[in-house]
Amino acid sequence: MRTKVDLKDNERIDDLIIGNLQIIQNPQLFCFSLDAVLLGNFVNLRPGEKVLDMGTGNGVIPLLLSAKGKAKKITGLEIQEPVAEMAKRSVILNNLEDKIEVLQGDLKDAPGSMGAGAFDVITCNPPYRPIGLGEVNRYDAHAIARHEIMCNLEDVINAASKWLKYHGRFYMVHRPDRLVDALYLMRAAKLEPKKLRIIYPKVGRKPNIFLVEAMHGGNASLEVMEPLYVYDDEGKHTEEIRGIYGGHFGAGEK
Amino acid sequence: MRTKVDLKDNERIDDLIIGNLQIIQNPQLFCFSLDAVLLGNFVNLRPGEKVLDMGTGNGVIPLLLSAKGKAKKITGLEIQEPVAEMAKRSVILNNLEDKIEVLQGDLKDAPGSMGAGAFDVITCNPPYRPIGLGEVNRYDAHAIARHEIMCNLEDVINAASKWLKYHGRFYMVHRPDRLVDALYLMRAAKLEPKKLRIIYPKVGRKPNIFLVEAMHGGNASLEVMEPLYVYDDEGKHTEEIRGIYGGHFGAGEK
Repeated sequence: MRTKVDLKDNERIDDLIIGNLQIIQNPQLFCFSLDAVLLGNFVNLRPGEKVLDMGTGNGVIPLLLSAKGKAKKITGLEIQEPVAEMAKRSVILNNLEDKIEVLQGDLKDAPGSMGAGAFDVITCNPPYRPIGLGEVNRYDAHAIARHEIMCNLEDVINAASKWLKYHGRFYMVHRPDRLVDALYLMRAAKLEPKKLRIIYPKVGRKPNIFLVEAMHGGNASLEVMEPLYVYDDEGKHTEEIRGIYGGHFGAGEK
Repeated sequence: MRTKVDLKDNERIDDLIIGNLQIIQNPQLFCFSLDAVLLGNFVNLRPGEKVLDMGTGNGVIPLLLSAKGKAKKITGLEIQEPVAEMAKRSVILNNLEDKIEVLQGDLKDAPGSMGAGAFDVITCNPPYRPIGLGEVNRYDAHAIARHEIMCNLEDVINAASKWLKYHGRFYMVHRPDRLVDALYLMRAAKLEPKKLRIIYPKVGRKPNIFLVEAMHGGNASLEVMEPLYVYDDEGKHTEEIRGIYGGHFGAGEK
């Protein structure tokens, strides 16, 4: 069942494939990537948990997590008002107002009115790239999603540390060239990395992203999981990737 | 050409396969593992460099590195006197006294008489396991090589930081469960991780060791290299592993 929502210029409605969900996208503002789907799949939710997705974009991760059917409440935080507004309409489109709330706000204001330790689980698909030497348009919505204009990795991790309760879990996706930054800043912020999954385009290639689960106040011992390959030798999605799209999203979690 | 050396009880001479070298081993004291061979292969040496191998055991890494034919001088440091003495005889056996020096000493005394910044390159295959709850024999040579009895990871990294010159390189092998410890402590000691290679027993399995190259005073950007698989699907060594043993040790380095 869907609720009709108005679409703005350049907007379209795409199937999320997972959970029979749909999502509003706008190539001028924000479209989700495979990285968000892999992060959503990686998140392990327990019944009744309160979840925050920082930098939620068009709300893709809250929508994906709602399909797992476990969270009590999922909050999406987005700094860009037009993007947050688009995410709100996707929540209405899917009749998920009782599960998902989208807020416009800045994670650098953490803990703010939501309060310290307010969440059991926090997720983030942050901007990957440091700001270079002036080639970035600081007012462009894409640039804000991709470059560390509004927040950097340290801001993201520090916000997660403030908003997570003790022993709460933080899930993040990022690029391998920032792995040391991520692990170092997490430990420094008392978010101990517990699971690391490295994503390779195919067998034998350099990895292009990684997924990490950290625990607030966790002890020091990392599990490096089996690799995830996106494509097989013939250039087709691997069985695992097809499984994620084919109803096994968050294997055993639904 | 070899020099005849006396063997003690339980000692044997093994072929190192690489570089036509031989090495004295003693199952009661120290035998080298694949990890040492992979670390030696991973090290990138430039002509005329001064190299230190901390915790050298029976000298396997200095011997392997000498086969690359680039180092001006390789020093092996070993805390256990009987093990250091065995390594010294392997150096004599291979007529490498002009290239390799083995010293008995404790890396916790760094920089000591060798002086700060004395080396271009430092290597280490450290004890992997923290000391548990009393099940370890603290006087057993094997236990000292495998458990953090005489030094822990922080001692190792801090010693490397002291003995490396500015922009010198540190090469280490360790287990994935200590990856966060390693990367965190390296950055904290101004040894910035620059290359990470993760070793998988075979495609699709969890990794069991990793290799890391760090640069003293390097900038923050990590290259996660393509994975190294030890065995193929049929349980045989992969082409890359066979290449290491088959004369391509340190590909292009000899």
